[in-house]
Amino acid sequence: MNQRNEGEILRRISRRFDGRPDRAGQPRVVLGMGDDAAILSSGANHELVISSDMFLEGTHFLRRLYSPESVGYKALARAVSDLAAMGAKPHSFLLTIGLPAAATGKWLNGFLAGLQQAAETFRIALIGGDATRYSSIILEITVLGTVPGGKAVLRSGTRPGDIIFVTGQLGAAELGRRLLPQRPGIRLTRPTMGHPLLSAQMFPQPPIEFAQRLAAEGLATAMIDLSDGLSSDLTRLCEASGVGARIEVSSLPLVRIPRIRSARKEDPVELALHGGEDYGLLFTCHPPHLARLRKISRSQKITPIGDITRSRKIEISDALGNVKILAARGWDPFRD
Amino acid sequence: MNQRNEGEILRRISRRFDGRPDRAGQPRVVLGMGDDAAILSSGANHELVISSDMFLEGTHFLRRLYSPESVGYKALARAVSDLAAMGAKPHSFLLTIGLPAAATGKWLNGFLAGLQQAAETFRIALIGGDATRYSSIILEITVLGTVPGGKAVLRSGTRPGDIIFVTGQLGAAELGRRLLPQRPGIRLTRPTMGHPLLSAQMFPQPPIEFAQRLAAEGLATAMIDLSDGLSSDLTRLCEASGVGARIEVSSLPLVRIPRIRSARKEDPVELALHGGEDYGLLFTCHPPHLARLRKISRSQKITPIGDITRSRKIEISDALGNVKILAARGWDPFRD
Repeated sequence: MNQRNEGEILRRISRRFDGRPDRAGQPRVVLGMGDDAAILSSGANHELVISSDMFLEGTHFLRRLYSPESVGYKALARAVSDLAAMGAKPHSFLLTIGLPAAATGKWLNGFLAGLQQAAETFRIALIGGDATRYSSIILEITVLGTVPGGKAVLRSGTRPGDIIFVTGQLGAAELGRRLLPQRPGIRLTRPTMGHPLLSAQMFPQPPIEFAQRLAAEGLATAMIDLSDGLSSDLTRLCEASGVGARIEVSSLPLVRIPRIRSARKEDPVELALHGGEDYGLLFTCHPPHLARLRKISRSQKITPIGDITRSRKIEISDALGNVKILAARGWDPFRD
Repeated sequence: MNQRNEGEILRRISRRFDGRPDRAGQPRVVLGMGDDAAILSSGANHELVISSDMFLEGTHFLRRLYSPESVGYKALARAVSDLAAMGAKPHSFLLTIGLPAAATGKWLNGFLAGLQQAAETFRIALIGGDATRYSSIILEITVLGTVPGGKAVLRSGTRPGDIIFVTGQLGAAELGRRLLPQRPGIRLTRPTMGHPLLSAQMFPQPPIEFAQRLAAEGLATAMIDLSDGLSSDLTRLCEASGVGARIEVSSLPLVRIPRIRSARKEDPVELALHGGEDYGLLFTCHPPHLARLRKISRSQKITPIGDITRSRKIEISDALGNVKILAARGWDPFRD
């Protein structure tokens, strides 16, 4: 069997149903598969943004290392991050859950407590759900959000010359994931508990309100959430827009490596380039809009890390001006 | 640990988020968790109906007995059945899939072929999807449909004196499931192939157009799809409406047991009462509307099986007039 990756599989799925959305009638399908979420137009002055996301024991979390509260919180935060990537306002969600009989008691209660915390933080309402028994814990969340008509920010809108920005720090969640096994006894049940790196891994905070402002004010030409790592997510954004990018190592907002033995070998640049799960935003801005962008960014850390090029390559330059091609080496579930 | 069932788990989930939908703003949440689907009102002249459904290897199908085409077809047909239960017209769906690397080739192609057949049959468009690697095949489908404003048929609308109807036959899919291991080599790839009982199990046909007519013409006071078996689904409908029911054994549209050795011990009444996965409709009709119901049922087999009572009990009477309480003994994933 050939080596396959997630992108290739999604393209195969999408190709088979190519063109079908046009036949769907009302509400009109503004955007089908391939971006962070789909968009439906209902004829009212807003559009509906919708996305589905799986969160699986073994693949995405280990029961022995993650409190049930953090699993509930993160399951919803991850899904909400896809709404942020479109600039949408969270509206409602459906939860489907498969779980072993042994997890229907205390574990489920902790999970629901974490899910509820996230629902309150992101102001999103549960409207549906289904539960079934399964040998391990599998979670699926479908989120719905709204965006003013025509204001959703796609991956495909950036042009050469645009400036590339990221929110927050890069690599904190991945570093937290690597440090987690050192703390097997830890039981973090709220975003404000424990070391910030562990919290970044267990209780991600997609900048959902900032994303809505970016969209509403038309300040982002393209946007994606940082779920699989900068190198992979930037590649997706550039492919969707038919452009390339050059980023500067020296401008990356790196995570500070704590001075503990287990972290000594970690490389902050490698974490920033390829570490996933930060659930910040990667977006591009047309230079004439930079002043307005600065104005709305007073309460949100954003960092320019490079610019969009015509080249169709993703390049990275170091402090000495050496330029290399940046390969997409972020998280891909189908790569060994 | 206490014995738990699906209904209890869903109530615990729902209770924790009680009242939250009201805070969601536009679109208005007309109906939250607890029916076959949620309903959103967008202010246009239709409402959006949405439901999520998991379909899991091991729990719902075995890879060695089900062709990948039948898995794809059934995964979508099951989800569409929840739209039928509301009287909604299918619009679009999102697919999330977890699968082993070994299933990303031929298996996935067969699966997508079956999924596409179902999408064409039920006229529903793929608008989003996600794929991840997992140790077994797990599928989740979120379906969206539309219904004219205020016309969705809920579980909660029936009243004493209403007549109870079912579409099609009862128990065929369960009998097909029991006979399937006798045909391990069989590879059915289309609904029209093989024995009707196997087809009923592998390629269910929810009566989606009939359901839309029932809803549009206001002929059903309550409706649910027959997914877990008549005894369980009728119990849910009666609980939601705060009523009871009496059904007649002699009126049940039984499946004919084939004269083969492996089927000899099967009891058609037990199959009709407790066999799941028929994906027909169970609905109630107010007696003054029976003539109009008959008119729209010319191309759809429907059978009156009893009536709604004040008693809050589900009773069953045999040909001699003996009346017994009917326990909900259909499929519940959390019962051993």
